[in-house]
Amino acid sequence: MENICIGIDIGGTTVKMGIFNTSGKLVKKWAIGTSKENNSASVISDIASSVQEVLHEQSYTLNDCLGIGLGVPGPVLPSGYVEVCVNLGWKDRYPARELSQMLSGIPVGLGNDANIAALGEMWQGGAKGFGDVVLITLGTGVGGGVIIDGKIAEGRHGIAGEIGHMHVINDENEYCNCGCRGCLEQIASATGIVREAKRVLAADTMPSLLRKHKEHISAKDVLDCAKEGDAAALKVIKKVCRYLGIAMSHIAYTVDPDVFVIGGGVSKAGEFLLKMIENEYEKYVKLSKAKPRTVLATLGNDAGIYGGAKLVFNMASVQS
Amino acid sequence: MENICIGIDIGGTTVKMGIFNTSGKLVKKWAIGTSKENNSASVISDIASSVQEVLHEQSYTLNDCLGIGLGVPGPVLPSGYVEVCVNLGWKDRYPARELSQMLSGIPVGLGNDANIAALGEMWQGGAKGFGDVVLITLGTGVGGGVIIDGKIAEGRHGIAGEIGHMHVINDENEYCNCGCRGCLEQIASATGIVREAKRVLAADTMPSLLRKHKEHISAKDVLDCAKEGDAAALKVIKKVCRYLGIAMSHIAYTVDPDVFVIGGGVSKAGEFLLKMIENEYEKYVKLSKAKPRTVLATLGNDAGIYGGAKLVFNMASVQS
Repeated sequence: MENICIGIDIGGTTVKMGIFNTSGKLVKKWAIGTSKENNSASVISDIASSVQEVLHEQSYTLNDCLGIGLGVPGPVLPSGYVEVCVNLGWKDRYPARELSQMLSGIPVGLGNDANIAALGEMWQGGAKGFGDVVLITLGTGVGGGVIIDGKIAEGRHGIAGEIGHMHVINDENEYCNCGCRGCLEQIASATGIVREAKRVLAADTMPSLLRKHKEHISAKDVLDCAKEGDAAALKVIKKVCRYLGIAMSHIAYTVDPDVFVIGGGVSKAGEFLLKMIENEYEKYVKLSKAKPRTVLATLGNDAGIYGGAKLVFNMASVQS
Repeated sequence: MENICIGIDIGGTTVKMGIFNTSGKLVKKWAIGTSKENNSASVISDIASSVQEVLHEQSYTLNDCLGIGLGVPGPVLPSGYVEVCVNLGWKDRYPARELSQMLSGIPVGLGNDANIAALGEMWQGGAKGFGDVVLITLGTGVGGGVIIDGKIAEGRHGIAGEIGHMHVINDENEYCNCGCRGCLEQIASATGIVREAKRVLAADTMPSLLRKHKEHISAKDVLDCAKEGDAAALKVIKKVCRYLGIAMSHIAYTVDPDVFVIGGGVSKAGEFLLKMIENEYEKYVKLSKAKPRTVLATLGNDAGIYGGAKLVFNMASVQS
């Protein structure tokens, strides 16, 4: 049989899995529910059983598999240690070692899910062909992953790529989940966009298409109205893009990537959003005329399984 | 003869050079003036002559030398191309290729001087023993270098590690040399400290030890007075450290290094300054209790030649 590898993305609701061949083609994709009982104690053994079952179904053996790349929704230390994973209820776990032991000692790589998604977008997604890539995920929160020279910048304390918590707003009075005030996530996440829109609408009585949604405004409503030229919505989105541009300038002055990949639900606003982000970025980086590209993520929810597979190919130094 | 390599740091006034053995010991150190005539056209050939002369004096040949690592005071693109180097007047140069050709094709590595200094501090300086290191140089300007996994994060557009130009101040009205307003360098450089001190003294009539210096305040005066508890000086230095802390939090949320190394003239204020920087940093990073160390640079002006030598060992994959 040809060699394969497996990418696995553990989320709070489902565990996504994919078998890839060495050309980077997704051969088989499936998912199982994340069993949260007893602090998600059985997730790793559920994965092990499911992997064996599907490999068998697909007429593969563990020996055909070069390894597994595993993404978890929390900080991972260089040793593979997961001190806490809030979404799963895990404490003091070594998930990769556990999975490896259950699967005859197969190599298992581990990483934070956002970092691994960045690797996926670099390998087969929006940043294909580039080596220095930063993924920014604009969803319920703001996440990110940093790839330098084709490899994840893991960081030493589990916070590399946590760009949602960059302090960019000086006059924010509410607290972020992390305990600070003024984090990027407080303005540039879907939640942040909605909150800012409500603030803008409450501040005066300017007419706005957004007012018809009353208390039930979504981030998509704000983006849609901004596209239609609604002044209040545009004000919100410009502020969002300003702070995204500032955060990206910080990243550029640190690692100066080839490309920023914008993903997550908010990125569905597409080129409209990219253009505004680029305009704002340029206001804060005048040292170099050449600048990173800004592109949309293309793998969606599959970025994590692609990245997990690529993690294995990086480990195995297999041509891909 | 034992193998050696050479680190070279091209500055606006002098070119520093050093011969190192494979154990990382500095065997011979010397300098020549930087000839600025005709847009510093002869600097590379001056270096080539001087290297040959000193190697001969020290009874080495070019064949004993594994290579040369060259630091230049400006942005370097991945191809080794230097589009502009303002301090030297260079335009459109490939300095490493030029030097290599003059020295029988010996391998020559090239990098931005601040990045190479960071590599030096990682190898034999304040960050010895660590692999993920960020150097912050507080001098006339604010420079920096980022090392990931023992190697320089070069960046793709020549601005990696240019942390002096991170936008951190929102209410700055004057422009930075880069064309933006609110850069870290505008407050945390020696120049920035003096300017801020003058602003604080002008703002009211509070008594301060600084007033005796009148218009001739230096950054050292401000730091010395702050150490003695002078309220005005402390106000300035706290603000400096606040913005340094914020910039370091941006860096941590991007690459999460083992250690920050603080160098440059301003860092002579020592532990007093480090403590204040660490206090401010902690206000902006609450996501992880574990945090990077903050240490002082120890190689001073020799960081560049150490880093140049290490660049060669990285190229040559020689044990060091």
